[in-house]
Amino acid sequence: MSIKTVSRVVNGETGVHPGTAGRVLTAIDQLGFRRNLDARNLRRGAETGIVGLVLEDVANPFYSMLTRAVEEVARAQGCQVLTGSSGEDPARERELVTEFLSRRVDGLLVVPAGDRHGYLAREIITGTPVVFVDRPAGGVEADTVLVDNVGGTALAVRHLAGHGHRRIAFLGDSPGINTAAERLRGFREGCAQAGVAFDAALVRMGPHTADSVAEVLAGPLCAATALVTGNNRITVHAVRALAGRPGRPALVGFDDFELADLLDPPITVITYDVRELGASAARTVYARLAGDTTAPRRLVLPTRLLPRGSGEVPA
Amino acid sequence: MSIKTVSRVVNGETGVHPGTAGRVLTAIDQLGFRRNLDARNLRRGAETGIVGLVLEDVANPFYSMLTRAVEEVARAQGCQVLTGSSGEDPARERELVTEFLSRRVDGLLVVPAGDRHGYLAREIITGTPVVFVDRPAGGVEADTVLVDNVGGTALAVRHLAGHGHRRIAFLGDSPGINTAAERLRGFREGCAQAGVAFDAALVRMGPHTADSVAEVLAGPLCAATALVTGNNRITVHAVRALAGRPGRPALVGFDDFELADLLDPPITVITYDVRELGASAARTVYARLAGDTTAPRRLVLPTRLLPRGSGEVPA
Repeated sequence: MSIKTVSRVVNGETGVHPGTAGRVLTAIDQLGFRRNLDARNLRRGAETGIVGLVLEDVANPFYSMLTRAVEEVARAQGCQVLTGSSGEDPARERELVTEFLSRRVDGLLVVPAGDRHGYLAREIITGTPVVFVDRPAGGVEADTVLVDNVGGTALAVRHLAGHGHRRIAFLGDSPGINTAAERLRGFREGCAQAGVAFDAALVRMGPHTADSVAEVLAGPLCAATALVTGNNRITVHAVRALAGRPGRPALVGFDDFELADLLDPPITVITYDVRELGASAARTVYARLAGDTTAPRRLVLPTRLLPRGSGEVPA
Repeated sequence: MSIKTVSRVVNGETGVHPGTAGRVLTAIDQLGFRRNLDARNLRRGAETGIVGLVLEDVANPFYSMLTRAVEEVARAQGCQVLTGSSGEDPARERELVTEFLSRRVDGLLVVPAGDRHGYLAREIITGTPVVFVDRPAGGVEADTVLVDNVGGTALAVRHLAGHGHRRIAFLGDSPGINTAAERLRGFREGCAQAGVAFDAALVRMGPHTADSVAEVLAGPLCAATALVTGNNRITVHAVRALAGRPGRPALVGFDDFELADLLDPPITVITYDVRELGASAARTVYARLAGDTTAPRRLVLPTRLLPRGSGEVPA
């Protein structure tokens, strides 16, 4: 491994294979450079009292709840929160992160749109706390708070199978999004656990607008007697597309959402503590700022199934 | 009027009657001090590229949509947005504003929790663009973007009266909140316009939690055959409280909300362009930063009624 490669990783340049970048960072870590306390202490005097939060879309209720939770933890520390929406665009994510860093934020919380974060390696090494939220970082070791996407989706499949369903469809977001890929993995695992054949013809990844969800449900997936939807937005679109359709499939959605309990039928969901997702990520930033130099942590929040009616329809 | 009073107003100190503060500011304005271009130009070189947005609660979908709209306008200017939630606490509003100003934000957007903004007079005079959103400022002249609360609520009453209702209830938020007071005024006007007696016994201002809304609907307001709810949160709580109740009242809610069209019955609402509320406020900040020194503007966005079913039930 050349000095040039190491320099590239440390300077957050592109063109380094994630695996290589990972090895460089591990080596740096083992040499004791992970948390540069001098850099940290130099920074201490210049704290801005601002943390940056990069998310996908603050108008999505999931992210607005997350934002509020981060805001509350920051407030208790006398700090403010800069927010920015990436719109699932990795270039925009990097642009926002770069902006926030140029403003000398004390810490960063990132719901990553992309899967390569070598560009953040230098900041992490020089002691800026960076916590990845909801989705893991790619190519850097960093604090991460996730949700048990695999376990939750597998549970949804077992629940539907328990009500007699054998033709179960999965409608997820773009497979480039980590949570979407993980939930698809959970769907496969759930099928295996429940003894249900995994049928690729009943899986669609990507449609996440009202029209595209309606189209897929009216076409390719209409042979299914049950449906697992991959996030709150897709579930809402599916509920709208299926409204009034005779013989509509049983439905379990990933993510809870407001009024799910008042729909007809009320929607069964896989749920978890969204506020805790934001709060624990923010607490990690402040723990790091307070001098916590232990190894990066990976926290995975548990999920549970909330039966309300739509998922308890027999096949 | 003493020099001391003027000094107090200009320095944003408390203890000045809003009417007096208003007269001082008008006088200063007439003397040509409204926009201190020197101060503005001094600031130009030191722009931080950050605007501050103070709202009530970013977890409320109304405010998260507003935030996204502000973020988009800011982004087009290469700027970032600092957000903070006041929780309807005037002291917290002032604390957030003071924090944002100490960070030298280029401009401020404020959904005011309080009704006294003399503390902002100095910033406004020295050229920091401050735009009040959704609710007006108290005691200072400033750019403001509002919604036609009176006209919208009056329309809701006329609509219900048009379906034969004579005992119409109003359930609004705390009367200390400007939008709540304005909507109550609209309710009264609507009653007068429709020839329906205004019955104070059918009006409750304040309950805005699930439990308190349910309690009021089960008790004092149960004599009504129709109900106008004063904002999105109260409507959602009312829908939940009324679910499954036999002979439930006709309902028109102020503010649209997600899934309103999929409830049973679908909810008739008074709606308006929330994104435009945020976007026009943000555009005003940037127009001021670009040198617009015309008199403060007051923009009032129109409302319209969206009939979906719940408001078209005959008496």
